[in-house]
Amino acid sequence: MASGTVGSGKVAAEFSAPKLTFEELRSALRQVGEERYHHKHPFHLLMHEGKLTRGQLQAWALNRYYYQSIIPIKDAIILSRALDPKFRRVWRKRIVDHDGDEQRNGGILRWIKLAEATGLDRERVVSGTEVLPASRFIGNEYLNLVRTRPFVECVASSLTELFSKDLIALRMDRMRQHYPWLVSGLDYFEARLTEAPEDAAFAIQYVYEHAATRGEQERAIQALRDKCDILWAQLDALYFAYVEPGWPPPGAFRLEADHG
Amino acid sequence: MASGTVGSGKVAAEFSAPKLTFEELRSALRQVGEERYHHKHPFHLLMHEGKLTRGQLQAWALNRYYYQSIIPIKDAIILSRALDPKFRRVWRKRIVDHDGDEQRNGGILRWIKLAEATGLDRERVVSGTEVLPASRFIGNEYLNLVRTRPFVECVASSLTELFSKDLIALRMDRMRQHYPWLVSGLDYFEARLTEAPEDAAFAIQYVYEHAATRGEQERAIQALRDKCDILWAQLDALYFAYVEPGWPPPGAFRLEADHG
Repeated sequence: MASGTVGSGKVAAEFSAPKLTFEELRSALRQVGEERYHHKHPFHLLMHEGKLTRGQLQAWALNRYYYQSIIPIKDAIILSRALDPKFRRVWRKRIVDHDGDEQRNGGILRWIKLAEATGLDRERVVSGTEVLPASRFIGNEYLNLVRTRPFVECVASSLTELFSKDLIALRMDRMRQHYPWLVSGLDYFEARLTEAPEDAAFAIQYVYEHAATRGEQERAIQALRDKCDILWAQLDALYFAYVEPGWPPPGAFRLEADHG
Repeated sequence: MASGTVGSGKVAAEFSAPKLTFEELRSALRQVGEERYHHKHPFHLLMHEGKLTRGQLQAWALNRYYYQSIIPIKDAIILSRALDPKFRRVWRKRIVDHDGDEQRNGGILRWIKLAEATGLDRERVVSGTEVLPASRFIGNEYLNLVRTRPFVECVASSLTELFSKDLIALRMDRMRQHYPWLVSGLDYFEARLTEAPEDAAFAIQYVYEHAATRGEQERAIQALRDKCDILWAQLDALYFAYVEPGWPPPGAFRLEADHG
């Protein structure tokens, strides 16, 4: 293992090859998304086919809330490591997007609205007491990544936003179709349809300009793979606990008797 | 959540209650083990019933190797935070136990022997390239814990060793019975039968002497719960990927066609 403490996995053999052009880099990043982004995860497939019960959607909203709640912390860590005020002025938008300001709610409050639309009490969601331990470990791994990896890799790890718009557009469509009682909770996704592509455009340009060698480019691509693994592992844990075999660990949220 | 980044979960309401006696503390810690230690996990139940295939045991040995490989790192972090040379002189034994010395192999090499007995190549195990991302996140969470929590909680988190002797004795017995081809790999467990109880006796005494209030005692007990959650989540991830539904994430170890 490259670092022994932060997931790094394999790195390509072509480290001494010529640098990728912008288009080649974008294409390599998109390839990672094709292979590893969680749009293909069985939990999402069930969600989009209308096959999740209300209880399973509660479990998803509750656990994903932990992830949402640490996103501005993740971005604050990145901000704390950014030496360039121009970068920080752009990146701080992400924190406002999630935490909100005087004019508007942020993404965290919007996610709570989604969880409430599934029938969960706000306090139960915010307390975090029923979250799967795996959800905490996975979220914390993302914080590990942005604390310890080279800065350009931290920026690259955000590039799942290259793929999120298509997934979110599909999800909103399918939720309106299969779970109409959830519609009041979809503001989070509505906002992400515009926020995520703006953020991704800046981040991919940054990675292209600041990954100085092919080796640095390959490690940036690996950071995106590692981020995809984080999202994938979240859905693995949800599927295991709440779909099949359906064994939540001691102390975690349990489905109520549930008729879909 | 108490800290937002490191799993902490619930803390008891009786924080202002009188301190637990040594026996009460030991009993409360043992109660955590009854409820949360991974001896009850379905993956271990299958293992002990002889129902795991060779491939599933490979997956277990490969993934658990990552955990083994960071144990001396975990102990080195604790050592680095220990201000008392007397404590450090005792605790450094754990690093020797795992890393070995001139006289004898350590636990990491013994674990590699176990993995080899399942039929895996040493290099494949040591490279870590096929480990489940979840195994890395879970191991890293343990490192997070000992980096960031109060010192007495770090020591308390080691107290799963109070429970490990019984589990290991049972496991060795069942492995000899059900997987006789694994017998050449059991040295790791043989050594732990004596190492773990020695370590636990020191650690529980330390926690009793250094948790100064009932609140600190309760948080030490919570740290043991959090450690149990780490071990449990490892087996959840193995079960999901290699037993049921049997979906390893992209890039991870895959079972070969396998007839048990």
